[in-house]
Amino acid sequence: MTFIWTRNHILALADWIAPEYEILLQTASSFREVLSRRTKKVPALQGQVVANLFFEASTRTRSSFELAAKRLSADILNFSPGTSSLTKGETILDTAKTYLAMGADIMVIRHQQAGVPLAIAQEMDRLRTGVSILNAGDGQHEHPSQGLLDLFTVCCLLDNDNPSIELLKGKKIAIVGDILHSRVARSNIYSLTTAGADVHLAGPPTLVPRWFEGMSNGKSPGKLLIHWEIEPALSDADFVMTLRLQRERMTAHLLPSLREYHLRYGITRERLKLCQKEVRVLHPGPVNRGVELSSDLMDDPRLSLISQQVTSGVAVRMALLYLIGNLES
Amino acid sequence: MTFIWTRNHILALADWIAPEYEILLQTASSFREVLSRRTKKVPALQGQVVANLFFEASTRTRSSFELAAKRLSADILNFSPGTSSLTKGETILDTAKTYLAMGADIMVIRHQQAGVPLAIAQEMDRLRTGVSILNAGDGQHEHPSQGLLDLFTVCCLLDNDNPSIELLKGKKIAIVGDILHSRVARSNIYSLTTAGADVHLAGPPTLVPRWFEGMSNGKSPGKLLIHWEIEPALSDADFVMTLRLQRERMTAHLLPSLREYHLRYGITRERLKLCQKEVRVLHPGPVNRGVELSSDLMDDPRLSLISQQVTSGVAVRMALLYLIGNLES
Amino acid sequence: MTFIWTRNHILALADWIAPEYEILLQTASSFREVLSRRTKKVPALQGQVVANLFFEASTRTRSSFELAAKRLSADILNFSPGTSSLTKGETILDTAKTYLAMGADIMVIRHQQAGVPLAIAQEMDRLRTGVSILNAGDGQHEHPSQGLLDLFTVCCLLDNDNPSIELLKGKKIAIVGDILHSRVARSNIYSLTTAGADVHLAGPPTLVPRWFEGMSNGKSPGKLLIHWEIEPALSDADFVMTLRLQRERMTAHLLPSLREYHLRYGITRERLKLCQKEVRVLHPGPVNRGVELSSDLMDDPRLSLISQQVTSGVAVRMALLYLIGNLES
Repeated sequence: MTFIWTRNHILALADWIAPEYEILLQTASSFREVLSRRTKKVPALQGQVVANLFFEASTRTRSSFELAAKRLSADILNFSPGTSSLTKGETILDTAKTYLAMGADIMVIRHQQAGVPLAIAQEMDRLRTGVSILNAGDGQHEHPSQGLLDLFTVCCLLDNDNPSIELLKGKKIAIVGDILHSRVARSNIYSLTTAGADVHLAGPPTLVPRWFEGMSNGKSPGKLLIHWEIEPALSDADFVMTLRLQRERMTAHLLPSLREYHLRYGITRERLKLCQKEVRVLHPGPVNRGVELSSDLMDDPRLSLISQQVTSGVAVRMALLYLIGNLES
Repeated sequence: MTFIWTRNHILALADWIAPEYEILLQTASSFREVLSRRTKKVPALQGQVVANLFFEASTRTRSSFELAAKRLSADILNFSPGTSSLTKGETILDTAKTYLAMGADIMVIRHQQAGVPLAIAQEMDRLRTGVSILNAGDGQHEHPSQGLLDLFTVCCLLDNDNPSIELLKGKKIAIVGDILHSRVARSNIYSLTTAGADVHLAGPPTLVPRWFEGMSNGKSPGKLLIHWEIEPALSDADFVMTLRLQRERMTAHLLPSLREYHLRYGITRERLKLCQKEVRVLHPGPVNRGVELSSDLMDDPRLSLISQQVTSGVAVRMALLYLIGNLES
Repeated sequence: MTFIWTRNHILALADWIAPEYEILLQTASSFREVLSRRTKKVPALQGQVVANLFFEASTRTRSSFELAAKRLSADILNFSPGTSSLTKGETILDTAKTYLAMGADIMVIRHQQAGVPLAIAQEMDRLRTGVSILNAGDGQHEHPSQGLLDLFTVCCLLDNDNPSIELLKGKKIAIVGDILHSRVARSNIYSLTTAGADVHLAGPPTLVPRWFEGMSNGKSPGKLLIHWEIEPALSDADFVMTLRLQRERMTAHLLPSLREYHLRYGITRERLKLCQKEVRVLHPGPVNRGVELSSDLMDDPRLSLISQQVTSGVAVRMALLYLIGNLES
């Protein structure tokens, strides 16, 4: 492959192109091999510092990034918002610059507001710091590492030894649930349509607005379609992605009851009969059992890819940290 | 020794047999030697991942396990309940499975409910994961690593070079305080009576119920006796273990005032005169000074083994992690 | 240099002598070189344990010490007050002794009460433990590592290759703001006047009481002067240190409004015209932008040394940990 990796920040998948996905999948695949060894460690980032700035609390994603960084032998600094200078009125940029001055090489940033990782990346570039920013989820904007680990998971299922976006050409993937508020859905829409899969969104009109169709930029080989009933989305689907339903949405009158939601949009063994015989189900976790996904289906290893997603997460995040941490500067 | 270690989970001491205690004591003894070096580290668990899942907050026990794991060169993931997916409604088993999927090799689990570590261990076995579970305290059930570090501490005092449960044959050990609610007391009862020591429980009837005598299974060489006065328990005792008194017990009307409690059951220099001349006092910490133990006695290095218990804790936890982390699978 | 480092605790700068400052500056300078390498790590404290006991929450200082310790290859134990035994009534000394018994070699201690690090150090010495205590800020007493990183920052600016306190002879340094409540100001007064600089304190009379003049012990080569107007303090100054203004001070009626404060004592580009042409501004962070310091000035790399201070912090803390961690005992 003659394409050379040049991206030094991972902020969004909206502008990723096909060869970047291919490099990422190949790199993650090689790290997956490292993870199967007894000593699951390589010295790739020895002596480098990864700062985890999680302004929004998270256990799952932070642990995954932390483990990825440790397996690359990096040193890790964890920033916990509860005990931080933020409560003393410091701006977010000042916090980032403090970690810069301490010597952070890569900053992994999660924030409840969209655009914060981008703003920090722009400041780091303006100051010519060479520091890389990795968006670990910003508001309702994007969650690129989640989109990439989902991509890696489905590609590995299709060809474990040679995961490639080529494998997704013409596949049908349903994304079901609260699309409107989901940064995971947005990142997946970009990666999957670029890979050539057709993405079918399904959910209640309040959570799947018509204007989402505009996210398809027309240049992607895959199509983007919207459904307010679940059946046409599931029909002949190869993969079904369900999203976590935030209970707070109900108080905002965007939803009927959880029971009603499960009846209309919950993924069950019965509903999967509409899909391809080999269908698999994904969920970014944590799952509300019995709401977006029936409990027995979640625990069925022949149908659920949830564990593989978590495992893929460590390999994909190692790949991201490795790629941006080894650029010629 | 021809006995081979085969236990892959450490959930309770209730079913431990004598040769297991002996292997544990010998292994801890060899790690204690490592801890006396300037570079207190060995590569035994290099590249393996120990996940500390402390659903119940703890500094002391978590730090001890963390240090033990670091000295074995393992990578550590800390789960903090405050910032976790649990608040988002995820089940405990799902949390454990997430850490499994990330690649955890050993999970150290503390939970306010009895039985949680066992439930997770059963699920790990059912899924044939090879992951080991270490109970770091579950409700009022057991706290096996505390029982083992107490055992190691007293055996080392009796023969520092060759700690063995043989040394406890015929010794008298008093355990004083809130036996009813104590997982520490339960683990110690099992280890000490199996070792052949006679265990005398003492405390107010509300906290030392008659049915505790039934914990002695009759097969253990050591006897288990109950007292509601402290004097017969201390009389000629070789060791006195005091337990932390939870202040919450008072509001439940299980106790008179703290002052009254100290007068009747507090361990003081005066009371120790009832014991053997060489008596030593243990306490799992943290101590309510002047309640279960007089303050001057706690600080007297000729009488108190509290510091040695903490030091033993690191060596014993290294031994446990080492033994379960190096099984042939 | 024939002077040999013998100090095993870093509690205050009040009694530091000139040769100690010189050794510290030289050692920090050599570690700064390590930090400019790609692999920013040395094995100086391999296998030793640094316990961070931050009874008062802090992100910035804790991260700096943590990174310093990691770069010396030490193992780190973090104590978080929220989840600690302190809430169970354990004394601070007992907490420290627990970490001692676990095997901590160095304890870095921050506490809201003045004197806590000293009390712990005295107990460690009384017990002949060999454990070193490093004060990371105690109440309104001292914050020695901050004083030293400020010293290192200004000395490096004056001669980057050979930072020495000799360079500060006859320099004028203004410290502006809430001197009364500032442990940073106190540590800086000691280091700077010992180095031979003249220190000019400025702020409202409620925050710069007359009796502060008594801190000058008369033996230091540098002078200590007090001003209630800012102009004489800034006039011809070589360096201006501003201090963080705690908003809580206003409710105590020690201050007019923040706006009023900024008008009278805030450092602005305009006010700096009173100083030497090459003047630089320092601030311990986090900054209240637009209160003690104007926002544009803070971001001007030709005037602000704030980033250099943070970077110096890691090198200076590596030097401190290294010096006290490598004493012959």
